[in-house]
Amino acid sequence: MNSELLLRAQSLDAADPLATHRSRFVLPNGVIYLDGNSLGALPVGVAETVQAAVVDQWGVGLIRSWNAADWYPAPLRVGAKIARLIGVEAEEVVVCDSTSVNLFKALVSAVRIAQRADQRRNVLIAERDNFPTNTYIAGSVSDLLGLELVLVDSTDVTGLSNAINQAGNRLAAVSLTEVSYKTGARWSMRSISSLSHSVGALMVWDLCHSAGAFPVALNDNDVDFAVGCTYKYLNGGPGAPAFIFAAQRHHGVLENPLQGWHGHVAPFAFESKFVAHAGIDQMLTGTASQIGLLALEAALTACEGVDMELVRAKSVSLTDLFMSMVDVELSDFEFGILTPRAADERGSQVALTHANAFPITQALIARGVIGDFRAPNVLRFGFAPLYLSHVEIHAAVLTLKEIMETGEWDAPQFHQRGSVT
Amino acid sequence: MNSELLLRAQSLDAADPLATHRSRFVLPNGVIYLDGNSLGALPVGVAETVQAAVVDQWGVGLIRSWNAADWYPAPLRVGAKIARLIGVEAEEVVVCDSTSVNLFKALVSAVRIAQRADQRRNVLIAERDNFPTNTYIAGSVSDLLGLELVLVDSTDVTGLSNAINQAGNRLAAVSLTEVSYKTGARWSMRSISSLSHSVGALMVWDLCHSAGAFPVALNDNDVDFAVGCTYKYLNGGPGAPAFIFAAQRHHGVLENPLQGWHGHVAPFAFESKFVAHAGIDQMLTGTASQIGLLALEAALTACEGVDMELVRAKSVSLTDLFMSMVDVELSDFEFGILTPRAADERGSQVALTHANAFPITQALIARGVIGDFRAPNVLRFGFAPLYLSHVEIHAAVLTLKEIMETGEWDAPQFHQRGSVT
Repeated sequence: MNSELLLRAQSLDAADPLATHRSRFVLPNGVIYLDGNSLGALPVGVAETVQAAVVDQWGVGLIRSWNAADWYPAPLRVGAKIARLIGVEAEEVVVCDSTSVNLFKALVSAVRIAQRADQRRNVLIAERDNFPTNTYIAGSVSDLLGLELVLVDSTDVTGLSNAINQAGNRLAAVSLTEVSYKTGARWSMRSISSLSHSVGALMVWDLCHSAGAFPVALNDNDVDFAVGCTYKYLNGGPGAPAFIFAAQRHHGVLENPLQGWHGHVAPFAFESKFVAHAGIDQMLTGTASQIGLLALEAALTACEGVDMELVRAKSVSLTDLFMSMVDVELSDFEFGILTPRAADERGSQVALTHANAFPITQALIARGVIGDFRAPNVLRFGFAPLYLSHVEIHAAVLTLKEIMETGEWDAPQFHQRGSVT
Repeated sequence: MNSELLLRAQSLDAADPLATHRSRFVLPNGVIYLDGNSLGALPVGVAETVQAAVVDQWGVGLIRSWNAADWYPAPLRVGAKIARLIGVEAEEVVVCDSTSVNLFKALVSAVRIAQRADQRRNVLIAERDNFPTNTYIAGSVSDLLGLELVLVDSTDVTGLSNAINQAGNRLAAVSLTEVSYKTGARWSMRSISSLSHSVGALMVWDLCHSAGAFPVALNDNDVDFAVGCTYKYLNGGPGAPAFIFAAQRHHGVLENPLQGWHGHVAPFAFESKFVAHAGIDQMLTGTASQIGLLALEAALTACEGVDMELVRAKSVSLTDLFMSMVDVELSDFEFGILTPRAADERGSQVALTHANAFPITQALIARGVIGDFRAPNVLRFGFAPLYLSHVEIHAAVLTLKEIMETGEWDAPQFHQRGSVT
């Protein structure tokens, strides 16, 4: 055991301006939670809000709550609370549906805008090894619109640049996830958005592993569309509704391919002809999943007033400490580090590789150190700066070391695969 | 006041085999709730389930609950609980997304199947005066697939028959809502499904105002696809996730146009190539809205073991009583009845028309009799047989009569329109 690293962790915690934010979350005892990049922890106040929504607003208010409890405007109201975190105006983002469904809406909308300017634009660029739903949705969109889908590797900046330049004035849109769900590697939003725009294509970013983890500046980078989930670093709860951003300059002209009544200029006029709302509301489709939306709204108070630059600085500090400790403490155990060492090339997670990644992950979880496994050989650790301390990171790596030293990871129960993971 | 009608109501309640089911719901005092066709009442046990899901499963279980609390299989598990109510097998229905999004999936899937048999099938028939989201989505699908969209009137059986016969072997699919959201009129599922099939088209039904209100027999009528919401007569809560049914015979060959990771044969293999799940899972797209889904699951216990024939009989009895009383008590006040008098031509709601429908509805709500208004001149009353009594219907009509007699509906505050209704 390296006491110098412990002292370093302790002194980093002592100087941590976000240390008090842990009290904004309800975390179980005996757990070091390194899976906030999959499902964020429960913020204080969410349970009470949800209970009031069910018992009082639904149970007593009944249908009246769509007006009296302001249910109807919730998708825009909650979107407005996310706006600051992703660098856009309040009226440019709305919360609805899943990330997958919103990506479909964003991609079709982007391609239609590109094709209106030049109908020969029939190429869509996406990532081969992105989170699979993104690749599948890009496939669905390409099938429906008759596009040529060009897939590039997530870590291959040169390959992407070549693909963009090669498609040139045939390129309709580029769809990337800023931070890889698997490796934690991060694209440069600025340079890639700029390159896409230079050939006249639209840029669509997925912020699932960005929003709430570090400052995002969509408008500073002239991004056209973005989507993201709210149950990772935004702590909205399991299956919380996703968000979608469309830049103001597109609001008048975009065509949502999932035209539903909530996207109509006057939903309660019940008109048979669809006339799109002029604002971001046009990205809505059906009725909002209200309970999940109100849970998310309450959860976002945990991010309220938080300086995202401080969040980023702490994220870098936590991930640096983790990687330093892996280097020092785990050198005997054949782990690889998949995540870029350069801070500006990664998000807020670190992915290790190991031939026995699955049972090792299970053994760690059994010890209360919760990360997750991604096939075939990745141990994934997420670092949520609002509720983690450096001392916890230190303890997590030492627990992993113990599991390796004792061989306890090799117990039969840790090799059993469930139906899901 | 007609005491004979009160005696009739009391004797119907005394003989009501479903009277005890009211105890399965939490209803506020002082309210007669005739809007269960918009948002069903809160069933007993839902609040406790939701609280446990938030505090214990999310707060303590964290990411582990996707396995340990069986979150992952919930869309299929909850779908299986709806199956009996709509006359299908457990493995033919799944809960996900909104009705609008599911309708998009069903329509594109249906048209693709029809076109695979004969690519000249390029006509889609839908309703002009359906709930608007249905008409809009039919428009979205027609735009994307290059279809000719033929709109018929919701009450025009002859017009629909002519449209089906005229399209003939060019007809891909017919998309109707069984019960009109506005008039309460009901299409004949049997004869229309049969007619659509006779020209080789597929049949897609929207069951928003059917599921939970009366027995639905999709498989007995060889229906191809169906969708529906769960927050009306299934009491799932505001914005509860919707369901989608695809007949078993289509499972091998259908193509969901919103391919997401939960529809993949092996979601946790994270493969870049989409391979559809062989079962109804293929209709899934993104991550389930878990809190809403668990609320719905708890809510469905209110329908458990309930004989849907008894539900239908009581629905007819409640709506008959209501219409009889409107005839007798409101004859001086120029109300019209938009809903068919013949029981087999209507669902479980009655729509009245009146030139002052809006302020009258508001005045009723102020008196605790909750129905709703639909532009331009409709007062809509839904009859949820599990928690309403005949005596309540009697009292509701007498309250309406008082409001008309006293002229209290004409008070200024009842003319003020909010942003939503």
